[in-house]
Amino acid sequence: MIVVQKYGGSSLADLNKIKNVAAHISKLSDSGQKIVVVASAMGKTTNKLIEMAKKISKAPNIRELDSLMATGEQQTIALLSMALNEFGQNSISLTGSQAGIVTIGHHTKSRIKSIDPKVINTHLNNGKIVIVAGFQGMNQNGDITTLGRGGSDTSAVALAASLGARCEIYTDVDGIYSIDPRVYSNAKKINKISYEEMMEMANLGAGIMETRAVELGKKYNVPIYVGESLRAHDGTLILNQDEIMEDKPITGITLNEDIFMVNIQHLPYSEDAVANIFNTLGKYELNIDMITQNITSTGFLDLSFSCFKREESLLKQALDELKNKFQEIFIEIKSELIMISLVGIGMVSHSGVAAKVFNTLAKNKVPFYHITTSEISISCTISKDHKKIATGMLAKEFNL
Amino acid sequence: MIVVQKYGGSSLADLNKIKNVAAHISKLSDSGQKIVVVASAMGKTTNKLIEMAKKISKAPNIRELDSLMATGEQQTIALLSMALNEFGQNSISLTGSQAGIVTIGHHTKSRIKSIDPKVINTHLNNGKIVIVAGFQGMNQNGDITTLGRGGSDTSAVALAASLGARCEIYTDVDGIYSIDPRVYSNAKKINKISYEEMMEMANLGAGIMETRAVELGKKYNVPIYVGESLRAHDGTLILNQDEIMEDKPITGITLNEDIFMVNIQHLPYSEDAVANIFNTLGKYELNIDMITQNITSTGFLDLSFSCFKREESLLKQALDELKNKFQEIFIEIKSELIMISLVGIGMVSHSGVAAKVFNTLAKNKVPFYHITTSEISISCTISKDHKKIATGMLAKEFNL
Repeated sequence: MIVVQKYGGSSLADLNKIKNVAAHISKLSDSGQKIVVVASAMGKTTNKLIEMAKKISKAPNIRELDSLMATGEQQTIALLSMALNEFGQNSISLTGSQAGIVTIGHHTKSRIKSIDPKVINTHLNNGKIVIVAGFQGMNQNGDITTLGRGGSDTSAVALAASLGARCEIYTDVDGIYSIDPRVYSNAKKINKISYEEMMEMANLGAGIMETRAVELGKKYNVPIYVGESLRAHDGTLILNQDEIMEDKPITGITLNEDIFMVNIQHLPYSEDAVANIFNTLGKYELNIDMITQNITSTGFLDLSFSCFKREESLLKQALDELKNKFQEIFIEIKSELIMISLVGIGMVSHSGVAAKVFNTLAKNKVPFYHITTSEISISCTISKDHKKIATGMLAKEFNL
Repeated sequence: MIVVQKYGGSSLADLNKIKNVAAHISKLSDSGQKIVVVASAMGKTTNKLIEMAKKISKAPNIRELDSLMATGEQQTIALLSMALNEFGQNSISLTGSQAGIVTIGHHTKSRIKSIDPKVINTHLNNGKIVIVAGFQGMNQNGDITTLGRGGSDTSAVALAASLGARCEIYTDVDGIYSIDPRVYSNAKKINKISYEEMMEMANLGAGIMETRAVELGKKYNVPIYVGESLRAHDGTLILNQDEIMEDKPITGITLNEDIFMVNIQHLPYSEDAVANIFNTLGKYELNIDMITQNITSTGFLDLSFSCFKREESLLKQALDELKNKFQEIFIEIKSELIMISLVGIGMVSHSGVAAKVFNTLAKNKVPFYHITTSEISISCTISKDHKKIATGMLAKEFNL
């Protein structure tokens, strides 16, 4: 079975680290394994390129920004291939376009539309280690595109799917924890987690893997291993839920501090009005989450939703458009709230999880505001100031 | 008429210089001119990338080296396009491959096989300034390739040819001089020079333009202007000799200090043996020049040729192969000689130029060794120590 190994920017931050990764891959190749490597840009390269662009233009053209950013990965893959040659390996680097990765959608946040694995398979069959630039592809106009945040994970899982391979994501953390250890130092590492739980956790703010990558893994049933670079064990395996035996209601807690809570009040309620609001938000491609809606006894709408802080400028444009459309509404943006979420497949079969969560918070005098639930998660907003106490109490309560 | 403007690395060395170039192009575009820009990598970027590669591997894989180096130009064109947007211009950057530049030949010194100008023409017709990465293309395997030294000049002239455009090469010198002003400070600037003379001068060591670029200009009759960045006048125009009226026997003097003189002795002469020697040298793609051959009265071959110092390692490999083939030969490599050349179309119609050259050298007690002549040039080797005196005396003699 082919393996697709993805190495992140911190694992490839300088030439020595590139050599170390090459040594590691080389050993694996000598054991007869067919290997495709997906590499990110070295260290902070992408940020440096973005800084250069920002010095030229406050709002750089996104097609050009993609073409600029894509050079980061192109440099890493060429250097890594040279390093593999030094270990006597036969290898070849491929840009996203050369690897047959076709994308669709907007620049700086394109999606993979299809992968033609012909070129990669030919090289693998010729005994080569194939090194593919993560985070990038080419759209049907022939423009270079990038996949947005965490895009290299998506590249790796998509390649694994198209090659019928397993996928290994190497990073600077040694696996996935039930809670961010920086917030709760007693957090336990998870050995196995289902795609669904991982997606919820990624979506809800755990920064380790991009949701889209896990989603693809689920869709094409690609086993994904997440672990520390140069170590092929002791990490976390993401797989189908029916392959997981454990019986715990909650798998992990995630915190999302990168949010605004937006509250819209005083709109006379109608289904059309609500649809109109979400059409407008959708037009700006905002990542809207945690939607709660009340209709007051006097027939007015009270609507709240969360939005990423990094999308502030888009959000403001969207809200300006809404104010023009509905002159009677009142809009408030809150930036001092964070979202705390509990995730677990077991939640479906364990009644009373929600009650236990709210009891724990109340007992510790932690006020909570907006509440949303999905089949495998419960989220609520709390004040920033209660982050540590809420996390610690819930972790104890659910043995995480 | 479309204009293709090429800007070298020193004109684009930092973000401010990129903005200045953008301002200049923007003004020209506002006057209604259709513009294609060919850009080199910023400042010393290419050298830095090569250094990185050398830290990974003493002899980096040349396919990977090409892919690595090509990122330099890709970064410049994206940044330059963003900068043009800031001046309200509509622009688009294209890598060599996106611009339809197909190459052939070895990595790190590929040649342009063909250019499909369709994409560029479409963008020009849509009112865009098109910015193309110099120095690079894609071969028919889909590999990224580079064109070797001065490759961006070649990209510019080839694009001008395929678009029926004129070509402007902007650099850090203000035109082409009859002699390198660093060697002879009274040297005069040339207003017009023929392709043939420029080719000879480029070939013989004048570092301003790559021979292949001028050759292409001649082949497709592309007028080439060479001048200082951000100034569209006072430079040198390269064009057909029948458009030049001047009547001077010598146009310029060039010095080539980057050479070894190789002397092969003691091979029993036969045409096959000589052919065999050049086949071997050709196999290593050495740039051999200034070939002189004598057959001694005892029937032995005495063969000399010059070779670039930068090709030393290839040369040594080739000579080792020759020593194996012809065990009786004796090979000597001289590194203390330089080549001085006088170039001029007028030479053909002015008899006695050669005599005048050798008389001048003899009068000033400058010994000269190997001599070669072409229709429009006379070259000889002299000692490094006589560089200044020989150049000065010949410049005076021929009023350069």
